[in-house]
Amino acid sequence: MNPPDQRMANAFDPGTLASLPAREQALIRRRQQALGQAYRLFYQQPLHLLRGEGVWLYDAAGQPYLDVYNNVASVGHSHPQVVQAIARQAATLNTHTRYLDEGIVDYAERLLATLAMPGHQAMFTCTGSEANDLALRLASNFTGGQGVIVTAHAYHGVTSSVAACSPAFGEGVALGPNVRTVPTPDSYRGVAGEDVATRFTHDVQAAIADLQRHGLRPAALLVDTLFTSDGVFADPPGFLAGAVDAIHAAGGLFIADEVQAGFARSGSHFWGFQRHGVQPDIVTMGKPMGNGHPLAGLAARADIIDAFGSRVRYFNTFGGNPVSCAAGMAVLEVIEQEGLQHNAHVTGAYLKAGLQALAGKHELIGDVRGAGFFLGVELVNDRQGKQPATAAASRVVNALRERRILLSATGPAGNILKLRPQLPFAREHADLLLDALDAVLAAR
Amino acid sequence: MNPPDQRMANAFDPGTLASLPAREQALIRRRQQALGQAYRLFYQQPLHLLRGEGVWLYDAAGQPYLDVYNNVASVGHSHPQVVQAIARQAATLNTHTRYLDEGIVDYAERLLATLAMPGHQAMFTCTGSEANDLALRLASNFTGGQGVIVTAHAYHGVTSSVAACSPAFGEGVALGPNVRTVPTPDSYRGVAGEDVATRFTHDVQAAIADLQRHGLRPAALLVDTLFTSDGVFADPPGFLAGAVDAIHAAGGLFIADEVQAGFARSGSHFWGFQRHGVQPDIVTMGKPMGNGHPLAGLAARADIIDAFGSRVRYFNTFGGNPVSCAAGMAVLEVIEQEGLQHNAHVTGAYLKAGLQALAGKHELIGDVRGAGFFLGVELVNDRQGKQPATAAASRVVNALRERRILLSATGPAGNILKLRPQLPFAREHADLLLDALDAVLAAR
Repeated sequence: MNPPDQRMANAFDPGTLASLPAREQALIRRRQQALGQAYRLFYQQPLHLLRGEGVWLYDAAGQPYLDVYNNVASVGHSHPQVVQAIARQAATLNTHTRYLDEGIVDYAERLLATLAMPGHQAMFTCTGSEANDLALRLASNFTGGQGVIVTAHAYHGVTSSVAACSPAFGEGVALGPNVRTVPTPDSYRGVAGEDVATRFTHDVQAAIADLQRHGLRPAALLVDTLFTSDGVFADPPGFLAGAVDAIHAAGGLFIADEVQAGFARSGSHFWGFQRHGVQPDIVTMGKPMGNGHPLAGLAARADIIDAFGSRVRYFNTFGGNPVSCAAGMAVLEVIEQEGLQHNAHVTGAYLKAGLQALAGKHELIGDVRGAGFFLGVELVNDRQGKQPATAAASRVVNALRERRILLSATGPAGNILKLRPQLPFAREHADLLLDALDAVLAAR
Repeated sequence: MNPPDQRMANAFDPGTLASLPAREQALIRRRQQALGQAYRLFYQQPLHLLRGEGVWLYDAAGQPYLDVYNNVASVGHSHPQVVQAIARQAATLNTHTRYLDEGIVDYAERLLATLAMPGHQAMFTCTGSEANDLALRLASNFTGGQGVIVTAHAYHGVTSSVAACSPAFGEGVALGPNVRTVPTPDSYRGVAGEDVATRFTHDVQAAIADLQRHGLRPAALLVDTLFTSDGVFADPPGFLAGAVDAIHAAGGLFIADEVQAGFARSGSHFWGFQRHGVQPDIVTMGKPMGNGHPLAGLAARADIIDAFGSRVRYFNTFGGNPVSCAAGMAVLEVIEQEGLQHNAHVTGAYLKAGLQALAGKHELIGDVRGAGFFLGVELVNDRQGKQPATAAASRVVNALRERRILLSATGPAGNILKLRPQLPFAREHADLLLDALDAVLAAR
């Protein structure tokens, strides 16, 4: 039995297994036997789900749960248009990128059009981890450097090379000798008198200097453009620009990790980097790209891809296969046809305003922030000292689960409620969440 | 335009684009624009496919091609049972491993049963690259070492860490400073008087000693158990045993890369390592696991997973999700219900005997080898000197494509025909292939 993971918010503690209903106990024991200790479950009382539709998930007893967490099934659970695209293509043909296929070309063209950066090209992988791993290979090859700069609590994936760029794993995973961390661009705990942009630019410049002092040429500044695992920091728009200029001046590339922020989630823009008015050299993407189908990839400047591709072939067996491209294309179509970016923008603003209103009633809420449908609600024990209310966040998450509303917590202390509803999430759903959160906070 | 890739057998040369039909030219130009230079196409005249069924693929003109190459759609293209499992689960629920789900537990149990190594546990990824990358993380964590031993022309994947263990990429990708290569266990060009097992054991021992001499503790011996990119070396059964003992004696682990050999392909056994009577500490798997759906993973000794999982959490967003597990379960069911391992065994032997008969007629064939449905036919310019007939292999592959039969070439010189039919491949299909190959060789 491993102890509850102190670095992971909302982890089930296997030590409490005996308190669960017999059916769940039995399933968890089988799971522990077959899958082992690296796997974690959510919640004090893990959730056994059987069905999903739109913004709702249903458990084994048929009870509905409002999903304010799962940003992978982003256009809605089991969206029929995506399911049909997958089923139809799987029944027709599923090969790979070494035969000609119109689907991958059509999809790549449509995907690249959303970036509005002519000259970028696409490469497909199956996971965001693979996309970031490949982005680092491209950056090293192009710059001749190895140095990578990430934020203090960043998460970029699970391959050896990107796990070594992911301080969010904590002490169990060593950062690479080529990796430097910079402080989170924290708009809530920032040093007085310094604005976020000035400080973040300065911190990236200092990290560049430190890499160079150690004989390491900077290859890339790699950031999640909503800084989600750092605690969700979106504002002020534009604060990234100085840091991007700094890495470019040092000969490195700017890699925008859009695995969390991309595909219309930030509401005002299709991609998170667009909120900041910057031009990434490489954009990586994943989670919502296939609405749950394993599809991920990157877009990069053609000269960067040329420099790599002229020396190295890249073949990802399943990456960009006909079924994956059909899923990806259906997701882009649904986002457009259903006006989901607009909904993330306006309903996201409505939800954020509702959370800010709750902050007026409940001292526990220290800050409400984020963009579109990626919002963070930071809980603190006192508003002056801003001490993270980690235990309270866990209680709130589990109390909402009892009320059949799913969300989680993030940030280095796990005290920031993380809200990532599906893009069709409507005002009525926001009201359900706000009422439940109000009641849970009042009942403390 | 990049030159044809000298390290990749059967690559399309973009310099010949102008000679293709207008429709293919236009699609390839769009593809080059959207996907860039790291992508490669097969064949002098790339193939544009629209449909697949069983062992057949169909091009845009409706012409059928006998598929003797694609080992991913291993139970047959668009197998209805697999397609239905994917479609049904995608329409019902697709979440992730942090909620309870019976599907992943049922699948893991059934998968582990095929290994017949009680105590091994499963972890799921989306690609074989991710599986090997994770296996190396497990091995380093468990042994405290970094040293990895691979064969001279091995291929283990595309993440940074496994590409650095993949000499098959050639000069464009540097091997890691922690990586040592050993000569291919070559039963065809082996040194006279030494058997394959003795030599391979000795070579692995020497690599271990070299790692240690450089202060590097051995973490793992990592081999594709059919040595497919090295040129397909399967015999004699058991030749791996001494090398496995050697890495264990040095405190390292044996990782069996079953991405090519696994899931009944070798005919006599479900897994390639079983032919050698050895017990891997970690088994990695991929390609045919979901019949094209992006599913991969590993099985490892529980103590290795415990040592990792107690310090590190591993969450692969899509890995082991309900749809992936449904696909994987359907593949296991089809292999069993349709007797596909038996078919690979007996029809593979029939095909191999037919190829050996062709070797009696055609001087170009220097050697026929392999197991079950993974066969290699090595073409040489002269049987005494065994000079690789690289250009002839390319001509044969392209001439067979003209006769609508698909296969490719492998090995460091690209002179070894690589036959990997789908598991339902029958005698009638073998006869079609053998007749066509006979005619192509006679027409030279």
